[in-house]
Amino acid sequence: MSEVASRVIAECRRIASMSEEPGRTTRRFLTPPMQAVHQYLRARMEALGMAVRVDAAGNLLGLWQPANAPARRLLIGSHIDTVPDAGAFDGVLGVVMALEFVELVKEMQLPLAIELIAFSDEEGVRFGVPFIGSRAVAGRFDSALLERKDADRITMADAIRAFGLDPALMEEAALDENAVGFLEIHIEQGPVLEAEKLSLAAVTTIVGQTRLSLEFEGEANHAGTTPMKLRRDALAAAAEWIGGVEQLARSTDGLVATVGKIAVEPNAGNVIPGKATVSLDVRHAWDSARSGAVKQLLENAQEIAERRGLAVQHQVQLEQPAVPMDERLTSFVSDAIEAAGMPVKRMTSGAGHDAMVLASRVPTTMLFLRSPGGLSHHPGEAVLEEDVDAALRVGRFFLNRVAAEIR
Amino acid sequence: MSEVASRVIAECRRIASMSEEPGRTTRRFLTPPMQAVHQYLRARMEALGMAVRVDAAGNLLGLWQPANAPARRLLIGSHIDTVPDAGAFDGVLGVVMALEFVELVKEMQLPLAIELIAFSDEEGVRFGVPFIGSRAVAGRFDSALLERKDADRITMADAIRAFGLDPALMEEAALDENAVGFLEIHIEQGPVLEAEKLSLAAVTTIVGQTRLSLEFEGEANHAGTTPMKLRRDALAAAAEWIGGVEQLARSTDGLVATVGKIAVEPNAGNVIPGKATVSLDVRHAWDSARSGAVKQLLENAQEIAERRGLAVQHQVQLEQPAVPMDERLTSFVSDAIEAAGMPVKRMTSGAGHDAMVLASRVPTTMLFLRSPGGLSHHPGEAVLEEDVDAALRVGRFFLNRVAAEIR
Repeated sequence: MSEVASRVIAECRRIASMSEEPGRTTRRFLTPPMQAVHQYLRARMEALGMAVRVDAAGNLLGLWQPANAPARRLLIGSHIDTVPDAGAFDGVLGVVMALEFVELVKEMQLPLAIELIAFSDEEGVRFGVPFIGSRAVAGRFDSALLERKDADRITMADAIRAFGLDPALMEEAALDENAVGFLEIHIEQGPVLEAEKLSLAAVTTIVGQTRLSLEFEGEANHAGTTPMKLRRDALAAAAEWIGGVEQLARSTDGLVATVGKIAVEPNAGNVIPGKATVSLDVRHAWDSARSGAVKQLLENAQEIAERRGLAVQHQVQLEQPAVPMDERLTSFVSDAIEAAGMPVKRMTSGAGHDAMVLASRVPTTMLFLRSPGGLSHHPGEAVLEEDVDAALRVGRFFLNRVAAEIR
Repeated sequence: MSEVASRVIAECRRIASMSEEPGRTTRRFLTPPMQAVHQYLRARMEALGMAVRVDAAGNLLGLWQPANAPARRLLIGSHIDTVPDAGAFDGVLGVVMALEFVELVKEMQLPLAIELIAFSDEEGVRFGVPFIGSRAVAGRFDSALLERKDADRITMADAIRAFGLDPALMEEAALDENAVGFLEIHIEQGPVLEAEKLSLAAVTTIVGQTRLSLEFEGEANHAGTTPMKLRRDALAAAAEWIGGVEQLARSTDGLVATVGKIAVEPNAGNVIPGKATVSLDVRHAWDSARSGAVKQLLENAQEIAERRGLAVQHQVQLEQPAVPMDERLTSFVSDAIEAAGMPVKRMTSGAGHDAMVLASRVPTTMLFLRSPGGLSHHPGEAVLEEDVDAALRVGRFFLNRVAAEIR
């Protein structure tokens, strides 16, 4: 293992100690520990000779502009906010790796400008809205968000001011035309690379998502005195439907479908459930495959409810189309993986990322690093040194290609 | 419809207004509204010429002892406590009907002593232990119960004293040898008689019950990044098992099995459930059928867990054997139904009753009245006048038979 790889991991763990809660990593949008991360990264970037600024959304940006390079620049970065009780690598790894990529550009003396971005909010924990940082950079920040309040009734506008920034300058955070590409390095947050014994993957698409809630309504009744044939059991109906959700997803390539949430009423051991409310989360890289699956699952629910004499209704909470990564930039990543001597793995991302938002503004791609145990949003989240090394080897080929082709 | 039937129903509704909560019927063990019910019933019984007393468990008892009758007496009654937000008939109907049965004995000039019992606690709401009243009368009151506390930290002993009674006299509440039978009249609390368009049924057995909780433990994971084949979804496992519970009960005569309660962790729409905890309630009139069903369902859970790579464990919370009613006394009831010109319906009780406790001490039987809509433990609980009339007609034949045969 290289010294650089262990430095990268140590740096992520050091940043993880900058937290709102002692002993756990929790760092929401524009909280004091985020200020500490800014100080730390600012010092690192200035030592590398980068010009540092903070935009009105609290994103920290550092520019490496070699004298021999054109003004057109590649963006590299990820987010520095976390979920409560987080691991050390989700988001932060992509920022620390960006520092190493700047080192590589310097060492290789490439005529390539790099702008490092540490997004202020991707997880959306503080204001219940994700991607605040990348929305601003993509020029897609809706100013109505400024009036949203956090759990302490502080508006986003006030939180921005308290961080020493001016919410009126939000529009200036949007990228100019010299930003020609964005690379996000991120942990996979899933078990696929580990299962296939691979270090890295090029991301082709961020999958689309449908989230909805579904309610079966039957009749609550006495569990002892109501014979089976006279029951209208809402949980039995929901259980049958959940079985069908799993079966459809298992038999449809690339589809994932999850019932993560369930509540029954009255929820007593000796009462037949009269109502069962379940969540559904469906994701696929192809929007038509996703909407077809959702349609079939809603039909299943209807059929089950009718057969059992129940009512069913649903409410769609999120419909988010798939976001394909830029083909050219993604081929640079996969070519670089091959050039570095590794099998080329291309995969979809089942989770949303800042890259999803940036892709609407600038050609965007992602590089995934294996997640040991598939863990993320968990203190046990990890990264292997050998995978960091692999990413750095890929970085050399990738940056060289970008410098040669993007002018 | 008879005047008596509408009086019975009006009397139940009047007692329902004696409540801890305005606008709803809630009357727990030894609360002030129970004192009001005692006053009301005492006046009714004294007007009928009965000798009234209250035992140390707060049961109200009234004795009708005709001069020409032996001291051996038939007990008739039910309970006067309720669940929160109850209906007007569960329990109370059996007490009000007992008053009418005393009227019948007087009118028919039968040489039969009747002791009316209004049990103080069957639902167990106040102290979390049911059947306090009937336990005392059956001589099965465990004095350790006196130390139990209600939600206001009042011990049962203090509650008894506050009601003007002496907990030290509990043993005197037990029946003497002159009590030769017990009849409980109760609403069915289920939909069976309504579905079969019948007014009444003789109860043959109070079913046995097993209650347990079962926990599937898999692995919580990201709903977007974890492919279907790498999941260990605890809710999917529980759903498959719930389907099997329903299927087994549907295909086993007389078996009811219910999953009324479910909780998953972390219970978030975008996280695969790592843990699912469900309740199971299994009832059957034959203990061997019940224990066989429970065994098979636990084996199912084990098989499902192993196939899916999950762990499963369970905890039995209640094992209560079935309680058969007295054959001779129950045949008196069904013969009386026939003599009154109705089809004889014999059925099990899926719910527990004071009769279940009394049966350990004295020959016991029950008469069920149809529950419109199968409703109970609900403000919509009702009784049809025609069914009260039918029960009064049955009462004539039944009381006559008891007077003739029990000496």
